[in-house]
Amino acid sequence: MGASARQGGAILWFTGLSGSGKSTLAAAVGARLTPAVPVEILDGDEIRKQLSADLGYTKEARDTNIRRIGFVARLLARHGVFVIAAAISPYAATRHEVRLLARDEGIPFLEVFLSARLETLVQRDTKGLYKRALAGELLHFTGVSDPYEAPTHPDGIILTDDESVEVSTQKALALLAQYGLVKIPVGDAL
Amino acid sequence: MGASARQGGAILWFTGLSGSGKSTLAAAVGARLTPAVPVEILDGDEIRKQLSADLGYTKEARDTNIRRIGFVARLLARHGVFVIAAAISPYAATRHEVRLLARDEGIPFLEVFLSARLETLVQRDTKGLYKRALAGELLHFTGVSDPYEAPTHPDGIILTDDESVEVSTQKALALLAQYGLVKIPVGDAL
Repeated sequence: MGASARQGGAILWFTGLSGSGKSTLAAAVGARLTPAVPVEILDGDEIRKQLSADLGYTKEARDTNIRRIGFVARLLARHGVFVIAAAISPYAATRHEVRLLARDEGIPFLEVFLSARLETLVQRDTKGLYKRALAGELLHFTGVSDPYEAPTHPDGIILTDDESVEVSTQKALALLAQYGLVKIPVGDAL
Repeated sequence: MGASARQGGAILWFTGLSGSGKSTLAAAVGARLTPAVPVEILDGDEIRKQLSADLGYTKEARDTNIRRIGFVARLLARHGVFVIAAAISPYAATRHEVRLLARDEGIPFLEVFLSARLETLVQRDTKGLYKRALAGELLHFTGVSDPYEAPTHPDGIILTDDESVEVSTQKALALLAQYGLVKIPVGDAL
């Protein structure tokens, strides 16, 4: 699997519910791109810990966290880093705002929606958070007791229910190639 | 003025009171290093706006903001960016913590103290904040009504009172050369 660096950076933004595969796919795609491409993964939970530990889970707080991830992503992309953001990012308008700010700087931005059926999400959820949320025990759990505005026209959609991480990774890489963000050898893409 | 990039990034951390010349010197040093070295300036006020707008000016809030600047600085330095932080960063222990986290990742970190006499700071302060603070009208104004713990053993000290920005810049560049962070042609350094 080869990948060659482009001069400027870019932002690949994975949005989707908890359990949809954002962190897993970010790690897998990142591993394919390095070391040819400098990659940094901005994981929603990790960034919240580092930059937004004081924030809660209201709409305003979630939006602030997403804006902060966007700010850091742009800083890195400006220096040629390929940034993969893996954050629920539930609000469409906020994702759009982050995209526009990137575009304003000439930074390519791909919004990719990771989707999975609720039963899949519940199955993957080893902490039982979905079950508790579905039972009404958790407030502000995105997709159950808090809104998730699925993208209406994302740059890509990957349905992660029934396919392996490897297949999803190939699809993500094919998407990057399609948008001219990385070059991958013919035959490796699906 | 030449400067050649090193493989890894580094963090040059300017600490000092408001008006000591942090932002000015960061811009001047940054301008000298680019384009040979990829530079990003993390200005305390700007980062506060982007990442810590919800924070106030208690010790805890100030420390949190400094830790966030440190986190972003490391992210960038990890990708070969030469980061110049220009933030009051009043607490010694927090600056030390940020330094250790950088060192843990093998990122060179220089703490440089920018110092100026109070009368100089007052003169430079076009907004009259020092006067108001000295008159007891401003709470939590660092150096007057809020603590500033000057570094006891910084990697460098630049007294900005009576010298031009150009001279301070030369001193900062000489310091970087001394620590092996950039190469500058002999004769350009003081």
